[in-house]
Amino acid sequence: MMEQLIKQIEFIKEIDKLKYVLRRTCLLHSDRRENDAEHSWHLAMMAIILAEHANERVDLLKVLKMVLIHDIVEIDSGDVFIYDTKQNHTNTGEELKAARRIFGMLPPAQAEALVEIWEEFEAGQTAEAKFARALDRLEPLLQNTSNDGGTWKEFDVRYEQVVAKKSVIARGSEQLWAFAEDMLKQNLEKGILKK
Amino acid sequence: MMEQLIKQIEFIKEIDKLKYVLRRTCLLHSDRRENDAEHSWHLAMMAIILAEHANERVDLLKVLKMVLIHDIVEIDSGDVFIYDTKQNHTNTGEELKAARRIFGMLPPAQAEALVEIWEEFEAGQTAEAKFARALDRLEPLLQNTSNDGGTWKEFDVRYEQVVAKKSVIARGSEQLWAFAEDMLKQNLEKGILKK
Ligand SMILES: [Ca+2]
Repeated sequence: MMEQLIKQIEFIKEIDKLKYVLRRTCLLHSDRRENDAEHSWHLAMMAIILAEHANERVDLLKVLKMVLIHDIVEIDSGDVFIYDTKQNHTNTGEELKAARRIFGMLPPAQAEALVEIWEEFEAGQTAEAKFARALDRLEPLLQNTSNDGGTWKEFDVRYEQVVAKKSVIARGSEQLWAFAEDMLKQNLEKGILKK
Repeated sequence: MMEQLIKQIEFIKEIDKLKYVLRRTCLLHSDRRENDAEHSWHLAMMAIILAEHANERVDLLKVLKMVLIHDIVEIDSGDVFIYDTKQNHTNTGEELKAARRIFGMLPPAQAEALVEIWEEFEAGQTAEAKFARALDRLEPLLQNTSNDGGTWKEFDVRYEQVVAKKSVIARGSEQLWAFAEDMLKQNLEKGILKK
């Protein structure tokens, strides 16, 4: 039991590093970039608050585990910007290696369970994964809207590109997509996004 | 439905402010102070990883909700340092007002449910609350140990005071307390803590 606990504490210390992994997007009405730990907390809160809007009934505990762990691999592999066309976003090899190293610090059964949940999130096929991925797309939309375009402006991302990336929200929640689409149209009207 | 969703999104935007509320303790091996959002994420991860060590069987989903929301009131009331003897730690009046204002942005049923979970955490009587509170005491112990005493040194907090504050870990988990007590004794031997 004590041996198991020591491994668990070492893992808990290791993942402190997620607080240093910076995303491209900034906090609401701010130029301070968000880190992955804050981001994961915010998605977890969104899951609790918005679960009723999921297309299919979701197991909230599983969604919470997914969003809380989904970026931990970035401790090793770094954040990949969603509109970066040079880097491969399905960077499975490097990220899988990271998942195995980091979750592998845990007792075997626990390590395996978390790698499985992370893979389920990445595959994006189950009701929980589709909903978790919808939340992951919705948060930066709120951020960029509040920051007069934020990373869209910074990287000259066009309306159609944003719509294409964000439309996967519909796979997790038609209701959230209706809301998001409306926000995007308003951003177009205000010139925050350009065609 | 859309009216409900708009309220929920306003709440989600409002709690972004938790990322600016700084705690006294710093990240592991660092002089960068932790913010409440990062802290809440870390406690949620600890809950997932350490749930098996709880004294009583806990409803993990409820523990997660507790640790994710437990500091949201500090958006209005600020962080109260645990060894601050001048300020009242059971600052119920101000914090309850904050809980009502912030959770009150949500649709009524959801607001009520979250205020209830927050009150359950504060009261510290149920199995979930005792375990969640144990995690909340354990994290800064790991941080201060890694930072050569951290806030214990900064505020001249003595071994007995730390033991007194940390011993409530035992109410949530005897196993985690055995581990924590051992860490504290090692800190005393190394001079990180003084009698
Ligand atoms: Ca990411």
